[in-house]
Amino acid sequence: MIKVKKSVQALAAYDPHLFAGRYKLDANENSYDVPPAIRKKILARIAGLHFNRYPDPGAPILRKILAKKHKVAPESIVVGNGSDELIHYLIQAFCEKGDRVVVPTPSFEMYKVLALANNAQPVAVPLNDRFDLDEKEIMNAAAGAKMIFIAYPNNPTGNCFSGDSVLRIIRDAKCLVVLDEAYFEFSNKSFLGMLKKRKNLVILRTFSKAFSMAGLRLGYMMADKLIAAAVNKVRLPYNINAVSQACAEVVLKNSPNPVIRKIIAQRDAMYGILKKQYPVVRSDANFLLIKVKDGMRTKKIFEKAGISIRMFKDGILRNFMRITTGKPEENRRVLEILKRGV
Amino acid sequence: MIKVKKSVQALAAYDPHLFAGRYKLDANENSYDVPPAIRKKILARIAGLHFNRYPDPGAPILRKILAKKHKVAPESIVVGNGSDELIHYLIQAFCEKGDRVVVPTPSFEMYKVLALANNAQPVAVPLNDRFDLDEKEIMNAAAGAKMIFIAYPNNPTGNCFSGDSVLRIIRDAKCLVVLDEAYFEFSNKSFLGMLKKRKNLVILRTFSKAFSMAGLRLGYMMADKLIAAAVNKVRLPYNINAVSQACAEVVLKNSPNPVIRKIIAQRDAMYGILKKQYPVVRSDANFLLIKVKDGMRTKKIFEKAGISIRMFKDGILRNFMRITTGKPEENRRVLEILKRGV
Repeated sequence: MIKVKKSVQALAAYDPHLFAGRYKLDANENSYDVPPAIRKKILARIAGLHFNRYPDPGAPILRKILAKKHKVAPESIVVGNGSDELIHYLIQAFCEKGDRVVVPTPSFEMYKVLALANNAQPVAVPLNDRFDLDEKEIMNAAAGAKMIFIAYPNNPTGNCFSGDSVLRIIRDAKCLVVLDEAYFEFSNKSFLGMLKKRKNLVILRTFSKAFSMAGLRLGYMMADKLIAAAVNKVRLPYNINAVSQACAEVVLKNSPNPVIRKIIAQRDAMYGILKKQYPVVRSDANFLLIKVKDGMRTKKIFEKAGISIRMFKDGILRNFMRITTGKPEENRRVLEILKRGV
Repeated sequence: MIKVKKSVQALAAYDPHLFAGRYKLDANENSYDVPPAIRKKILARIAGLHFNRYPDPGAPILRKILAKKHKVAPESIVVGNGSDELIHYLIQAFCEKGDRVVVPTPSFEMYKVLALANNAQPVAVPLNDRFDLDEKEIMNAAAGAKMIFIAYPNNPTGNCFSGDSVLRIIRDAKCLVVLDEAYFEFSNKSFLGMLKKRKNLVILRTFSKAFSMAGLRLGYMMADKLIAAAVNKVRLPYNINAVSQACAEVVLKNSPNPVIRKIIAQRDAMYGILKKQYPVVRSDANFLLIKVKDGMRTKKIFEKAGISIRMFKDGILRNFMRITTGKPEENRRVLEILKRGV
């Protein structure tokens, strides 16, 4: 009889919470696809690729472009098949069985999921009632832990934690601090400037959100070269396919996605309207977290209107809905429902 | 001070042995790209994709097509970002720290590399002097091990091991037997027929070789549903990007790659010529393993001619070169050098 590892038996396969609404506002994607002019360039690049050849291992050209953009060494950068893969590698490279990984809660689910999949022990530290970090509790939990994950801005709450707290945690923690800046382009707040001084800091960024490339699976980390080297030791050599490498290179050669400003403006306008009627978190990301009275009923109302949203059922997030800031037409439909009262 | 895991410190990052020759015959790629008519269909599919949306988690459409093709249940199939990723997941899901993984040697390097990266213990079992499995030693090593990797045909030797030995190992081993059929389309020999009876059997296949899609990173495993479910528990939910899923779907809807027959014919013709002059292994794959007198000198001669080859330096493979069977023009150049004597 073939036996799966006990720690793996206990896992549930990740539930991506799928509901295929006409208006997909449940996954914090960019509602705008890559701009047509850039898409055209991307398709021309793909047409010239040799599908039969292995991709460049380690995505050297892409890393060079990123290094220049961020003013860090190419050896400090590792590209992942989505940031998910980098989170996995960080835990794999640094955590022995049972090692503790500090996870502010609620936050991005994959920190906990991937800690468990790698036989590490996630230690949940609840956010305070303003959805901010409990700095003291984080530092207590960090003693003896291998790493802390901090999403900045946080998902699903949407806010950036207190910058002073994060700064002190990076400065004082004796373990890795992984700062996941997946939504950076919507917050414009970053700790990248601390990278050269703090050897324990890892910054995660992604092409999935502001860059409209969730379908191509591209995340990257920036960290001290020793940390990058450790991740490279466990990285699959050909983890980034040729098409994704080429697409990212094209996208970076062009100016920032012009829709980012639009999304930020729409998000803030929606916040201004909704806060009069609902408890809603001021957002630094491309989504809003809103508390409704009856989550199940609200979810059904949105589904009936063809709108996918993310509704939370348990704990501190019970009856909170998370909704992506989409195109004006999509946001108008969302507001229409919410203004009626749910 | 941030500390990498001891087991990871000891690893070397994988060396993909790069030399960018004009004629790339070092990585067992398909020298023919995807046929132009299919490329055209692929590009049309890509042009219609929404880059901004997350890919379908678990590649359900692709798995359905593969399930129909192979007459297995879709739940028995897991698609990986290359077979590498599936090898990694199998070890991650089944091996605790120090668990033994049996690796016939020489074989595909990644079995050992990924066992070490996952803190498992690779147990090398040397092939016999005909590069065949030492069935008795494999079964001895398998006692108490978690899995056995068997490349069929084997890489880098190119031969299929004795079918009777493999059959008995699958039947009698108490652990997982992972049969890597990456080069199946060039051997036409498979153990897929045993899948329904043997709950410990895992078959790996890939789009990187016969299907000319190494650049898109697509492998898949077929196994008992319980094994597939365990792998899905540790799998990154969005491990296969939207472009690779779409490409594979298009490729499978079309007839088998017509170049496979050409490559087989060229391989056999080259074997017939070379065996008169060199020790060379009869190949069931898309490459040949040839023993030369002076490996370093031979490598230089090929590099000077702009031809990338893989030369082995150590142990039983010392002075063996592995060379991909390419297009007729490429093969002619290879024969020209080898006929002169190296």
